[in-house]
Amino acid sequence: MIYLDNSATTKPNPQVLDSFTKASTQYFGNASSIHGIGMDAERLLRKSREQAASLLEVYPNEIIFTSGGTEGNNLAIKGIALEHQNRGKHIITSSVEHPSVIETCQGLEALGFEVTYLDVDQSGLIEIDSLKKEMREDTILVSVMHVNNEIGMIQPIKEIGEVVQNYPKAFFHVDHVQGYGKVALDIQECHIDLCTISGHKIHGLKGTGVLYVKHNVRLFSLAHGGGQERRIRSGTENVAGIVSLVKAMRLAKENQPKLDEKLTSLKNVLIEQLHSLDRVVINTPKINSAPHIVNFSVRGLKPEVVIHALEDFDIFISTKSACSSKSADESAVLIACGKDRDIAISGLRVSMSYETTEKEIEFFCQKIKEVIKKLSEVMG
Amino acid sequence: MIYLDNSATTKPNPQVLDSFTKASTQYFGNASSIHGIGMDAERLLRKSREQAASLLEVYPNEIIFTSGGTEGNNLAIKGIALEHQNRGKHIITSSVEHPSVIETCQGLEALGFEVTYLDVDQSGLIEIDSLKKEMREDTILVSVMHVNNEIGMIQPIKEIGEVVQNYPKAFFHVDHVQGYGKVALDIQECHIDLCTISGHKIHGLKGTGVLYVKHNVRLFSLAHGGGQERRIRSGTENVAGIVSLVKAMRLAKENQPKLDEKLTSLKNVLIEQLHSLDRVVINTPKINSAPHIVNFSVRGLKPEVVIHALEDFDIFISTKSACSSKSADESAVLIACGKDRDIAISGLRVSMSYETTEKEIEFFCQKIKEVIKKLSEVMG
Ligand SMILES: Cc1ncc(COP(=O)(O)O)c(C=O)c1O
Ligand SMILES: Cc1ncc(COP(=O)(O)O)c(C=O)c1O
Repeated sequence: MIYLDNSATTKPNPQVLDSFTKASTQYFGNASSIHGIGMDAERLLRKSREQAASLLEVYPNEIIFTSGGTEGNNLAIKGIALEHQNRGKHIITSSVEHPSVIETCQGLEALGFEVTYLDVDQSGLIEIDSLKKEMREDTILVSVMHVNNEIGMIQPIKEIGEVVQNYPKAFFHVDHVQGYGKVALDIQECHIDLCTISGHKIHGLKGTGVLYVKHNVRLFSLAHGGGQERRIRSGTENVAGIVSLVKAMRLAKENQPKLDEKLTSLKNVLIEQLHSLDRVVINTPKINSAPHIVNFSVRGLKPEVVIHALEDFDIFISTKSACSSKSADESAVLIACGKDRDIAISGLRVSMSYETTEKEIEFFCQKIKEVIKKLSEVMG
Repeated sequence: MIYLDNSATTKPNPQVLDSFTKASTQYFGNASSIHGIGMDAERLLRKSREQAASLLEVYPNEIIFTSGGTEGNNLAIKGIALEHQNRGKHIITSSVEHPSVIETCQGLEALGFEVTYLDVDQSGLIEIDSLKKEMREDTILVSVMHVNNEIGMIQPIKEIGEVVQNYPKAFFHVDHVQGYGKVALDIQECHIDLCTISGHKIHGLKGTGVLYVKHNVRLFSLAHGGGQERRIRSGTENVAGIVSLVKAMRLAKENQPKLDEKLTSLKNVLIEQLHSLDRVVINTPKINSAPHIVNFSVRGLKPEVVIHALEDFDIFISTKSACSSKSADESAVLIACGKDRDIAISGLRVSMSYETTEKEIEFFCQKIKEVIKKLSEVMG
């Protein structure tokens, strides 16, 4: 199996799964219980929180454990909106965000909030000047992703943070789901107030994630209850899930420099090889893009057909993001980048992981060539 | 170890954990991906949903998988409130609900909703007449728990459902977290629109749960995004968690009749033995209460002290619920039942599971006797 759909989800690292199983059995207590079994769980939880904080270079009380990226993004955005609506009801985001950001913003529009969806340039990047133009006195939140899940471009987070800094009423949220472990991000330096990470994108388990929430930031809780997680996210803590997540975060961070080198070189091979093929257009910008994602379109070929043809060789890639792969056939992200419709409907994504080898990429390049040739002949 | 804190959390059943590990490894795909690896995960998800539906005797599309009981309660209550506020802004609940219901309602009060907290009688039960009196034309939700987590009484869900039935604008939510697998509940017959279940209370894993949402009920989503789970709860599906949850649900349901018989008899032993002790008052009502919970107060003794004394014999019980065990020392539930303050501050809870044996209960009864005697002497 050549699995090249790591931006949709990754295979859990066996060490990560193992830590989950062990903690589930040995530390099954409720971390809020006052007896020894609860306290053992609580100690493990505290240690995990400290580790997560140290990996992100933030304080332990700024770590809110969640069930994943979608929850993190919703909690950040709805949490700010509902809590701080008396300050203003204007939110700024971009037109290339993940559905868990875009649709959350649309949900808030239904509740009376006003949302500006920033345009992007041809590389998918936000222009700082247009952000500056849209910032208002009643802007309470700017939410921009770090690495785009479809085409992999990296937004100028530091520059955005500097703009938002000038508006003391506005908070800055970054969806770091595709970035963590791939492209370094300095939360402090970028003046980030809220930052989302998801476990299953970094060889952790589904159902795990972190939302960084700066110590002085208040959110309307989407999970009221026992008061866990700084009263922001109540519920019996999934200690085993948390332990496993922190393990995945540690492994991802430790391996990042090496991984970057390896994947960047594979990415260059991919882009070069694909670029040389008829009908193929590369959508991922050469610079300012993450090492693990290459998006390309094969003009005139339905992406599902290409995907299924590659499956015959046990190769797995995807059309745009898994989250929207069953709905409309046009990529909103490619459209936002100004691509023609024939390109926007034929986008394909290769996304790599630490398991991806040079051999696999060579095999993929050979097979995609054959597949395109064959399908082109069929199409006439 | 004699673990008698199963209402706080249970030890995962090894079969359940095993199903999680297998699914995590063999079905790691993103269930929304269109390739074979995604489709394998999707098929497993669909099968799990069908099984969950069949266990609850509802339709598969009425099953919304969540991260646990707190999320389920929040989603049900906030989801109805935010979606249907144009119909009315009045909510009815009781004064003996779990914090994940009470505090959610308080959160909504801050957003302009009006909440009525029904009083209960000495057994902790809602009186149907007071419910009838409080129902209004602008009541959009009635939220009442099935089995109380602190003292175990069973609310008259069917009668409440019949009252709510007469108000077509009002939805009926039941927190079934402590009831599932202990006390049967017929969702259809009770006219329930929303029903919360949590995995870790039934020997499943933390981070898993179900919210039953009747097919024609719309909720404001707390997790917008990819549109999973009927657009009510987006996010990459935690397929392994879901598989494990459904396994736990199946085991719990299959074993319920046998378990009921066993625990009821242990509960009677407990009540009889405790009742005979000096200073002890039994708070759990004899009738209309679940088989697994016995709550009692030891007048004049601090419950933490009793708990830690029992720990010396490797026995684990709790004060009220884990979720509130670290905050105020008075039990809001016992106060609501009209108990005196000295009883309300000295409540202790024994909660059993299928693993609990007669021997363990005998040993506990012997030790609690000794502990109370010794501590009473110390107190003078
Ligand atoms: C950029 C981005 N944000 C958020 C998410 C949502 O994360 P999760 O799948 O953990 O809900 C994803 C993945 O689906 C993503 O790629
Ligand atoms: C009655 C009741 N409802 C809801 C919950 C919350 O469930 P969870 O711990 O899965 O968030 C609990 C347990 O804490 C409970 O006992």
